[in-house]
Amino acid sequence: MQSNLAVTDKTRVKRGPKRADYSIERIHQIIDASLLCHVSQCVEGQPFITPTCHWRQGDYLYWHGHSHARNLSVGQPVAVNICQLDGLVMARSAFHHSINYRSVTLFGIPELVTDKQEQTESLRWFVDKISPERWAQLRPMTETELKATGIVRLKIQEASCKVRAAPPVDDADDYEWPVWAGVIPLEKRWGSMEQDPVQSVDYPEPKLSDAF
Amino acid sequence: MQSNLAVTDKTRVKRGPKRADYSIERIHQIIDASLLCHVSQCVEGQPFITPTCHWRQGDYLYWHGHSHARNLSVGQPVAVNICQLDGLVMARSAFHHSINYRSVTLFGIPELVTDKQEQTESLRWFVDKISPERWAQLRPMTETELKATGIVRLKIQEASCKVRAAPPVDDADDYEWPVWAGVIPLEKRWGSMEQDPVQSVDYPEPKLSDAF
Ligand SMILES: Cc1cc2nc3c(=O)[nH]c(=O)nc-3n(C[C@H](O)[C@H](O)[C@H](O)COP(=O)(O)OP(=O)(O)OC[C@H]3O[C@@H](n4cnc5c(N)ncnc54)[C@H](O)[C@@H]3O)c2cc1C
Ligand SMILES: Cc1cc2nc3c(=O)[nH]c(=O)nc-3n(C[C@H](O)[C@H](O)[C@H](O)COP(=O)(O)OP(=O)(O)OC[C@H]3O[C@@H](n4cnc5c(N)ncnc54)[C@H](O)[C@@H]3O)c2cc1C
Ligand code: HEM
Ligand code: HEM
Repeated sequence: MQSNLAVTDKTRVKRGPKRADYSIERIHQIIDASLLCHVSQCVEGQPFITPTCHWRQGDYLYWHGHSHARNLSVGQPVAVNICQLDGLVMARSAFHHSINYRSVTLFGIPELVTDKQEQTESLRWFVDKISPERWAQLRPMTETELKATGIVRLKIQEASCKVRAAPPVDDADDYEWPVWAGVIPLEKRWGSMEQDPVQSVDYPEPKLSDAF
Repeated sequence: MQSNLAVTDKTRVKRGPKRADYSIERIHQIIDASLLCHVSQCVEGQPFITPTCHWRQGDYLYWHGHSHARNLSVGQPVAVNICQLDGLVMARSAFHHSINYRSVTLFGIPELVTDKQEQTESLRWFVDKISPERWAQLRPMTETELKATGIVRLKIQEASCKVRAAPPVDDADDYEWPVWAGVIPLEKRWGSMEQDPVQSVDYPEPKLSDAF
């Protein structure tokens, strides 16, 4: 089994190469830990960008929306980034301030998912990523709903990951400078559930996901 | 004083137009509440995307990096998105699941900040956005550091904002479906500070920012 993606001209990290990683396992982890990606597209030289939810099955990254949405137009190259801001890196000099982060960038040409069974299974996967076991409890999906929905997938084959997870790195002469230095982590968590005010029965609360 | 940006072909929200907003005040609020943007660029038809920290002064959005970084190349159009995922919207049907969010997309051609005083003031603004009053406590910035740094700014004039902040909206027939429905808010907060292990003095902890 191949464990690293091949590095290409597009994915070679030039700035900060020691933070680069092409491990498939690592890339999958970062994708799965996040609900949100940004899809970048060019239309006649004009860049567009769309924040969108994503999910992963095997070697494919998926996203969905209205079947005519721009970010679902297929057959054209996209660049997708998925990242988490993990903390503020507070150095002794302004120059060496930084961010601890995990970040994946993918390149490729998305394809439309057209097989009905794959579409349905894929949406189920998505809903259960958001909240485990939820799909089975919901009012079943209809034909009309499925028809209105576009799903695309992008093969995870041209991608890079860049990670920073460390205390500040200051110039040797600055370590005694009298100011607090270190990392301020950013924490994310699900807050208390806000049940729909029109709902009068106390149904069991949904399960939570580890992806933010 | 103009209070809304003019809508253009690029910024007219077609999908979900009732969530659209062009209020300058609202756009500034969303920009200021966030530390992270995504910059989308085209190079000969190939899209690229870079997650980057940003800050705002007046009508300009700024970002910085190595003076030769790709996301600082100027004179070419960019699209920038800044968004916050505020909560999961749990409906009775899979189809009506959604996300509560605040999102701004900007279009334009960034310009290089070349005036030394504007550069310095701008970096100070950035550092103090991350942690109020920090700049004045740091080892002062040097000429060499300033020279290595590229700063660009983008006029906030072609931009849209899209916001969802509401309970689920289900089909009329589904409201009695026996499953928990409502919103699960995502909370972000700064965790406990991790002082650099090499630092042996207890300096006062840095002030925290409200932007995530
Ligand atoms: C956290 C988050 C998660 C999302 N998840 C999904 C998802 O899973 N599936 C999905 O279909 N959509 C999702 N969206 C909405 C998505 O960003 C788009 O608004 C939607 O997909 C319609 O895209 P479009 O290009 O067809 O829009 P159009 O309406 O055709 O876009 C036209 C113009 O409207 C403006 N606009 C569109 N979207 C936004 C935006 N988000 N913010 C600011 N301006 C905007 C831009 O100026 C754009 O050029 C999500 C948004 C956020 C913030
Ligand atoms: C939360 C966050 C905040 C950041 N803030 C800043 C900032 O304020 N200023 C700044 O200069 N940089 C910032 N970065 C880093 C930024 O994303 C770029 O890595 C950096 O700017 C170098 O860009 P470049 O195009 O010159 O990189 P290059 O090294 O020339 O890019 C070449 C290739 O490397 C890969 N690559 C580059 N960056 C990333 C990435 N982030 N994730 C995955 N693959 C990548 C891509 O495949 C890319 O095509 C931030 C990153 C994150 C995740
Ligand atoms: C937990 C699961 C889901 C989440 C979090 C989710 C989230 C979203 C979001 C945020 C949007 C954009 C709305 C906007 O423009 O503001 C969207 C659009 C859409 N979703 Fe989902 N969705 C989910 C499941 C589904 C399922 C299962 C279907 C199909 C059965 C579906 C079909 C659609 C369609 C058709 C649109 C486009 C709506 C339009 O632009 O008119 N979604 N979804
Ligand atoms: C709180 C303030 C700051 C934060 C959060 C910050 C954050 C960052 C981040 C995340 C990067 C990317 C590093 C990477 O590729 O992994 C970066 C790069 C860079 N920053 Fe900053 N920065 C800050 C202040 C400054 C200041 C004040 C200067 C100049 C005096 C500066 C100069 C640079 C330069 C030159 C690079 C490019 C490094 C390289 O690619 O070789 N930064 N910054």
